Amino acid sequence: MALENIDIVLVNSLHSGNIGGVARAMKNMGLSRLTLVKPLEYPAPEAIWRAASASDVLDGARIVETVQEAVADAQFIVGTSARGRTIPWPIQDARQCAARVLNNSGRGERVAILFGREDRGLLNEELELCNLHCHIPTHVGYPSLNLAMAVQIVAYEIRMHALNASQSEPEPEDAQWDTPFATADNMARFYTHLEQTLIDIGFLDPKAPRQLMRRLRRLYNRVRLDEMELNILRGILKETQRAIKPNDRDIKTD
Amino acid sequence: MALENIDIVLVNSLHSGNIGGVARAMKNMGLSRLTLVKPLEYPAPEAIWRAASASDVLDGARIVETVQEAVADAQFIVGTSARGRTIPWPIQDARQCAARVLNNSGRGERVAILFGREDRGLLNEELELCNLHCHIPTHVGYPSLNLAMAVQIVAYEIRMHALNASQSEPEPEDAQWDTPFATADNMARFYTHLEQTLIDIGFLDPKAPRQLMRRLRRLYNRVRLDEMELNILRGILKETQRAIKPNDRDIKTD
Repeated sequence: MALENIDIVLVNSLHSGNIGGVARAMKNMGLSRLTLVKPLEYPAPEAIWRAASASDVLDGARIVETVQEAVADAQFIVGTSARGRTIPWPIQDARQCAARVLNNSGRGERVAILFGREDRGLLNEELELCNLHCHIPTHVGYPSLNLAMAVQIVAYEIRMHALNASQSEPEPEDAQWDTPFATADNMARFYTHLEQTLIDIGFLDPKAPRQLMRRLRRLYNRVRLDEMELNILRGILKETQRAIKPNDRDIKTD
Repeated sequence: MALENIDIVLVNSLHSGNIGGVARAMKNMGLSRLTLVKPLEYPAPEAIWRAASASDVLDGARIVETVQEAVADAQFIVGTSARGRTIPWPIQDARQCAARVLNNSGRGERVAILFGREDRGLLNEELELCNLHCHIPTHVGYPSLNLAMAVQIVAYEIRMHALNASQSEPEPEDAQWDTPFATADNMARFYTHLEQTLIDIGFLDPKAPRQLMRRLRRLYNRVRLDEMELNILRGILKETQRAIKPNDRDIKTD
């Protein structure tokens, strides 16, 4: 599976809580390979607490001394980076990077994605190990992402790309509805019934109908009623007519 | 600016650290409006620490008692949710939701995005306030995202969409609508009126309501009523009540 070839590499992380947050973010998105390059304080209870049900990712993490060791068998290396380093490097945003990562890992290549220190990111010599730099477009007012958040976004993009690789079309919002949608025939019967009921209760004057029925048609056609909803609305109309009919008879016998 | 109309609403958050993480995630992505519905422990030093340089977002946060209060003037409400509720609701993934959110907020509409409790998410009655449900496609092995991570992903998608918005997008079906969409406050009044009228005509038995009101809420939230449509429906309810009232009096004088 393509995701198993992807290694998340944290370089000299300062806060163990972030390591736990990264483990959880990874597992939530279906990633499992974590490498820690000389973490400052690890193992630590804060990491386990923040990992929640992803402690298996922590348990399986590889701990190494240098970045070179971490990426030794990687065939495609991505380094996360803010824009604007002195030497320009191929750089893409997280979405484009995720596509590249999955294309390569899907062909069986080992991929490493490097995330730098909380305060200084990746050093120039670490960035120069990379085939591609990845940036996340943050706001100029506060561009510095939390480490675990950065991993979350990249892992999310990888997952979205993996999911979309099989299905080309986004799912419409009414996919997998629980009831079939109403037929035009049944809708036509509903509108006739609605119009008659509105006349019965004195809300619609057939001599001066204005735009009323047009607006109601637009409303119910926009929503696409399902058969059960249509039955509910027909039931309400029927009950409304029944509730006012005895009154009509009273009036007639006056 | 479209992003200023977007309100991130945290409902009964349990951990103050998450509130700080949310504030930072928001500011990193250019969002600033935060509403806290009855947070469990807040203010708290953990929130300020995790917010880092986003303490201004915390300082500007609105704190309210109820979800209804939080969304009162919202015209488009999104609720984040896992899949698989008993009654399906219109649901889209975070990417599609971000597009909807920005289209609406860009036209000056007030948008609220609800995030539920860390342990239980949003309650059914809170999800029923929403026009659209949003899901983040997590891995089945560990589907439960940290709260701040969920906000980070949604905020990131909103930012990505805002950056791409200059590229041409197909226009959504409710673009350039002729009338403003109804606020949550007015929708709440409509549902109260509708429920009372259904009781009055004998269609709804308050002792055995079943799923009736839930299905009607889903229907009218799905369609997004505009103010004129809401007035028409309120007028129909009023006229229905008036039409059956003389009958009630006849029965009493019998």
